[in-house]
Amino acid sequence: SRAQAWGRSARQRPGLLLAQSRAFSNNKILVELDEGSGVATVKFKSPPVNSLSLDFLTELCISLEKLENNRGCRGVIFTSAIPKVFSSGLDITDMCGKSTEHYVEFWRAVQQMWLRLYGSNMVTIAAINARGCLFALSCDYRIMADNPKFYIGLNESQLGIVAPFWFKDTFVNVVGHRVAERSLQLGSLHPAPEALQLGIVDELVPEEKLQEKAAAVLAQWLALPDHARQLTKSMMRKPVLDRLVTHQEDDVQHFVSFIAKESIQKSLRKYMEMLSKRK
Amino acid sequence: SRAQAWGRSARQRPGLLLAQSRAFSNNKILVELDEGSGVATVKFKSPPVNSLSLDFLTELCISLEKLENNRGCRGVIFTSAIPKVFSSGLDITDMCGKSTEHYVEFWRAVQQMWLRLYGSNMVTIAAINARGCLFALSCDYRIMADNPKFYIGLNESQLGIVAPFWFKDTFVNVVGHRVAERSLQLGSLHPAPEALQLGIVDELVPEEKLQEKAAAVLAQWLALPDHARQLTKSMMRKPVLDRLVTHQEDDVQHFVSFIAKESIQKSLRKYMEMLSKRK
Amino acid sequence: SRAQAWGRSARQRPGLLLAQSRAFSNNKILVELDEGSGVATVKFKSPPVNSLSLDFLTELCISLEKLENNRGCRGVIFTSAIPKVFSSGLDITDMCGKSTEHYVEFWRAVQQMWLRLYGSNMVTIAAINARGCLFALSCDYRIMADNPKFYIGLNESQLGIVAPFWFKDTFVNVVGHRVAERSLQLGSLHPAPEALQLGIVDELVPEEKLQEKAAAVLAQWLALPDHARQLTKSMMRKPVLDRLVTHQEDDVQHFVSFIAKESIQKSLRKYMEMLSKRK
Repeated sequence: SRAQAWGRSARQRPGLLLAQSRAFSNNKILVELDEGSGVATVKFKSPPVNSLSLDFLTELCISLEKLENNRGCRGVIFTSAIPKVFSSGLDITDMCGKSTEHYVEFWRAVQQMWLRLYGSNMVTIAAINARGCLFALSCDYRIMADNPKFYIGLNESQLGIVAPFWFKDTFVNVVGHRVAERSLQLGSLHPAPEALQLGIVDELVPEEKLQEKAAAVLAQWLALPDHARQLTKSMMRKPVLDRLVTHQEDDVQHFVSFIAKESIQKSLRKYMEMLSKRK
Repeated sequence: SRAQAWGRSARQRPGLLLAQSRAFSNNKILVELDEGSGVATVKFKSPPVNSLSLDFLTELCISLEKLENNRGCRGVIFTSAIPKVFSSGLDITDMCGKSTEHYVEFWRAVQQMWLRLYGSNMVTIAAINARGCLFALSCDYRIMADNPKFYIGLNESQLGIVAPFWFKDTFVNVVGHRVAERSLQLGSLHPAPEALQLGIVDELVPEEKLQEKAAAVLAQWLALPDHARQLTKSMMRKPVLDRLVTHQEDDVQHFVSFIAKESIQKSLRKYMEMLSKRK
Repeated sequence: SRAQAWGRSARQRPGLLLAQSRAFSNNKILVELDEGSGVATVKFKSPPVNSLSLDFLTELCISLEKLENNRGCRGVIFTSAIPKVFSSGLDITDMCGKSTEHYVEFWRAVQQMWLRLYGSNMVTIAAINARGCLFALSCDYRIMADNPKFYIGLNESQLGIVAPFWFKDTFVNVVGHRVAERSLQLGSLHPAPEALQLGIVDELVPEEKLQEKAAAVLAQWLALPDHARQLTKSMMRKPVLDRLVTHQEDDVQHFVSFIAKESIQKSLRKYMEMLSKRK
């Protein structure tokens, strides 16, 4: 059935077990797995700002798949090895001045990342310093650094582009229709205290306590029997996952034709110029 | 039409009028009807913990049907005659070590109870000391004893089982997707103050004021014209009621095959042992 | 496509441009357009209470269409020239003792007003003293006078009538299912502070600051690129707009047959008598 299109189905796909692995690292992502506790830590270390580039997404999907298929792994903490940013979001250089083939490949990678993460059978905790909203919203629980200078939000409309329906669905599932409607239209980046108040994140802790707190929360979630928790999570998220699975190719075509428009390309180039001047 | 599958249709089913009745009692439920005010009080008195057993549910459905068909009854207050608990939820003994026929009969009774209650044309107020979450969520208004030692929640996943989609739909309609997702995955039992903050209950009052407050709230709701209020309630709840009506048999089959699994039976036996040790 | 059934489609319908216009006034509505900023102010001035009569709605729809088709207009502030009331809601005299033809025409005007407003490509800000709930809910942002004697709500059920499904959908999109269910059943009129707390309005300001605050908020929204903001708004609202477009004729027939019932007519006459005695 369609439900099998994502997530772990441990009995049917044992092929990728990493029984021996303790840690595996690539260029942009560091994965540490503690087989005693069943807890993995996935650290983003792709300078300068952990943007979701095609390369980053590809590595991330592979890491997620490995963990999902590893029966020894029951929960994951996502965090950043870069100060001040968890992830800056979609990489603009992958959406600007590239070929149609590149856009297709890039968008498929964004979709895959989200399908894996939002549909994961593992408990997923985001330990965020700042930014990385879509990624965080797709986890089970969000802890953010208690720093009013740190921001989080889906700011697509500030770039002149539009969040796809499944970003919107994910956002609405967390904060409700009203907050999502206003925040998405304005492309708001919310300071941490506001993000907490709006429900975008679940709690704030001092930055140096992020990892510790994430571990404590994860332990609480792992106290539940996996099977019932997984079926419950799937029941909650399946309608929104199914919606993308059903419209996946349309969504790729829609993205590609939208992003290739000269007006959009111009708008993205302007935004990149503004960013480069800011530095 | 399907809308007629539940609730009172006074003109078409006047057969069960209890014009003379003042009070009727069975073994497990006490019903008092004040025909002057049109207010019934339904008291759960099934020791030790008012669990939703097949017998309890059968009596409850009969009581609800009688009241629904009694034009003299416009509103109901549900409360408990047992200290410290409104209802402990689904009776585990009805889900453990029984025949398929028993599971079928039990689950049909759970469905019937919910269809009657969630689709009731009467105003329904839950005056809760503790527990009884699904029942309370299916009422129009929830008042809980202001006692931080009293808990409420849908804790199925703690038992290793999964709340059916219509428990979930009912929960989401009250607290929204985010709170439901987290609470259902963790099988959380929330202390009264937290239940208020999450919106699971509408207000807290000192335990000895439960009945008085429920009567005051009900009077407020009964000030509205019945017909407009009933049509409005039906408009709000019909999609979720229809969903179970459409999938009722599938839902029975799903429950029966799930609950009969040896792994689930084992998990329920463990939970019962834990409970019996606690006493 | 159906999405084109409402809202501005500037490239395809440039016919109604009002390039020269500074202000245009009718009997019941005053429109001022500042072409420098692209901001229009629409003032309701239909004594005694700006009720949504057939005449008022007809003028309002024409004004909205003109603004929507004017590329010089990017945002609108709606406010009242009448003290103490923004709009009293549906005009009861248009629903009482009239012909079927009149009811049809009236309801079509209510639908048209909502389709134009909820689906507008312009940024729409409601600067409310009191009342006018449906209109306000259909805007992008709601600012209300900070006066606990001012009320707002959908009080249909107090009149013995039922809000149509698209009023309900609009309400649920703003405040969620639970608040809408209770408020609609009770036909509640909420004092301003409660309206803020429930999320019916976005902020309260002293009455004399309404216009100033609305202008400041609108400027913030207009800082975003129109195209991305409009597509995002449409994505959020399209499902609810589509639902009425699909069922528009059914909804008219439903209204007409409901409102023409003698029991409903009697209930409305009673309500009007009560109002006239109150004066």
